[in-house]
Amino acid sequence: MLYAGIDLGGTNIKAALVTAEGEILCEASRPTCLPRPSGEICADIAGLLDELADRAGCRGQIAALGIGCPGSVDEAGTVVYANNLRWKNFPAGTVLQNMTGLPVAVGNDANVAALGEALFGCARGAQSAVIVTLGTGVGGGIIINGRMVTGFNGAASELGHMVVVPGGVPCTCGQRGCLEMYASATGLVRMTREAMDRHPHSLLHTLSAGRGVDGRLAFAAADRGDQAAREVVDTYLQTLALGLSNLINILFPEVIGLSGGVANQGESLLEPLRRLVEPAVYGHELGGPRTRLVLCTLGYRAGVIGAAMLAKQKMESGT
Amino acid sequence: MLYAGIDLGGTNIKAALVTAEGEILCEASRPTCLPRPSGEICADIAGLLDELADRAGCRGQIAALGIGCPGSVDEAGTVVYANNLRWKNFPAGTVLQNMTGLPVAVGNDANVAALGEALFGCARGAQSAVIVTLGTGVGGGIIINGRMVTGFNGAASELGHMVVVPGGVPCTCGQRGCLEMYASATGLVRMTREAMDRHPHSLLHTLSAGRGVDGRLAFAAADRGDQAAREVVDTYLQTLALGLSNLINILFPEVIGLSGGVANQGESLLEPLRRLVEPAVYGHELGGPRTRLVLCTLGYRAGVIGAAMLAKQKMESGT
Repeated sequence: MLYAGIDLGGTNIKAALVTAEGEILCEASRPTCLPRPSGEICADIAGLLDELADRAGCRGQIAALGIGCPGSVDEAGTVVYANNLRWKNFPAGTVLQNMTGLPVAVGNDANVAALGEALFGCARGAQSAVIVTLGTGVGGGIIINGRMVTGFNGAASELGHMVVVPGGVPCTCGQRGCLEMYASATGLVRMTREAMDRHPHSLLHTLSAGRGVDGRLAFAAADRGDQAAREVVDTYLQTLALGLSNLINILFPEVIGLSGGVANQGESLLEPLRRLVEPAVYGHELGGPRTRLVLCTLGYRAGVIGAAMLAKQKMESGT
Repeated sequence: MLYAGIDLGGTNIKAALVTAEGEILCEASRPTCLPRPSGEICADIAGLLDELADRAGCRGQIAALGIGCPGSVDEAGTVVYANNLRWKNFPAGTVLQNMTGLPVAVGNDANVAALGEALFGCARGAQSAVIVTLGTGVGGGIIINGRMVTGFNGAASELGHMVVVPGGVPCTCGQRGCLEMYASATGLVRMTREAMDRHPHSLLHTLSAGRGVDGRLAFAAADRGDQAAREVVDTYLQTLALGLSNLINILFPEVIGLSGGVANQGESLLEPLRRLVEPAVYGHELGGPRTRLVLCTLGYRAGVIGAAMLAKQKMESGT
C-alpha cells in the first residue's frame, strides 16, 4: 500500500507518495498563494493527489492521506488555529476526506516532520527522539515509541518557548528569554548585530560587507579568531545547550536531531554542543548510554514522509 | 485478578494488594533496614506478599507483582543504579520472579507513583499528566496515554534537574540553578535562612523560635505580612512556575499534579502558581482548554497503586 503525505506550508504545498517503508515514489508541489479560501487550498491538495496517482500509475493503491499543517490540530483533524492560513476551527480532516474519499490524518507540521525524521531519518530505529528545528523560529517535535507527543489539546510541542534566560529578551509569545529568542537564526542575527554595534572594529563588519548579516556570519568570523563573534557563538551554544540538556533530563530521548538553517553549521555546531550538554545530563558520571546529538538527514522530505506515516498510523490504529 | 504493589523506599518497604480498578484490598509495611544485602530485601518483599495473600485469603489470585524502587531501571527490570540501596546492575525483576513465581515489573519509584496518581488519583481519566513532587528534592514523572515516559535508557524523568536559574545555586548533579535547588523543601529552607540572615528583624525569627526553620515558615510569615518572607515565597513561586510552564510548553499535559511536603500549602500555593503559569503558556491568548494545576490525592498510596498498575500493564502487554 501507498500513503500520500502533504506538507502544507505558508509558501508551498508539497506532496509525495510514500511506501510503508518510508520511500518516496514521486513528489509534486504547488504554491500556497496565501491568502486564499480554505476550500481552494483543499482542492489543490486533492489535485496534487490526482497528479501523483496518475504519474505513478497507482490510482486505487493509496490507502490514506496525511497532512502536516501549521498551528494546533485536534484528534479529529480540525485545525484549531493556524495564523498564516487564517484557519480557526477548520475541519481540514473531514473536508479532505469528503474531497478525496480517503481516510485523512492531520497533524502539526513541525510534529509531523519530527515523526518523519524519527521513523526514517536521523533517529531511525531509536526508541525515542526529540527533533529541534533551528530556523526563523525554534520548533520541533517529540516522538516516543514511534508516536508524536502532541499534548491533550492538540497543541504541538512548543520547544522554542522553554525559557532559558529568565528575564531575558521579550518573545512574541509574551514570555521573556524563550529558547527561540536565542537559538533561532533570527536570534543569532540579532545577537550578531548587537555585537557589531558594540565592537566597531570586529571582523564581523568586514565579513558582512556586501553579503549582509545572516546566521552564518558569527560562526565564520569566530572561526577566524574574532573575539566579538566568539562571544556571540558562545552565547548561542550555551543557551541552546541549556535547552537541549533540559529536554534530556525531562525525557531522556535516545536521539536529539537538529534541523533548520543553523544546523547547516554541522560539526562546528555539534561538537561544542556535545561538550556543553554532556556534563549537564543527570547521572552522566555513571557512564551509561547517552542521548545521541545528531543532524537531521531528510531535509524538507521529513514533512511529507512524516505526514504519510501519520496516515499509516491512523489506518493501523483504526481510528 | 489482583496485583501486588511494592514501594521500596530507603526507610520502609510498603506493600499492597490492589484490584484492577486501583482499589487497595490490604496493606503492610516493613522497615528497609539499610544497609542490607539485596537478597534479604527481596526476601522481605516476598514475605510481605505472603503476609498480604494470607490476610486477604486470596493466594492464587495475585496475577503479578510491581515494584517501585529508587534509581534507574531498565526494560528487563534490572536496577541500573540505586544509590541508597547500593544496587548496581541488580536484576531485581528476575530475582523476585524466581522467589515469588509471579511476573514482575520494576520501575523508578517517582515514575511509578506518578503512574498511580495519573490512573487513579488527581489525573484520573486524563489523557496525560505530569506529577511533580516537592519534597526533600524535586522529582516526579510523566504519564502519557496511561504509560510512564521513562526514556530510552531506563533513566527516570529528572524534572528537578531542569535549569530554571542559569548560573544559579550549585546542585549536587553538577549543574547550577536546577529547579530542585529552589522548588524543593530543602531549597525553601535554604532561601528562608538566607532571608533571615539578611533581615534580622523579620517575623521569620519570631515564628521560628522553638520550632526551627522548615518549609512552612516562609509561607506562614508571608501570610502575616512579613516582607522578607514574602520575597522568599515569591522567588519560590516564580522558579516553580517557570519550571511548570516549561513543562506545559514542551508536553501540554492535561493535568499537572503537585505532591510532597510543600504541596501541603494547598490553595495558598496553587492559586498564585496558576496566576504565574497561565500567561506563560504558549497560545494562552487563544483561550483553549488549559492544563489543570491540582494537588495529588493519593499520598503515599500512589506508590503501591502505581506499582500494582505497572504489573498489570506488563501482564497485558505480554512482555
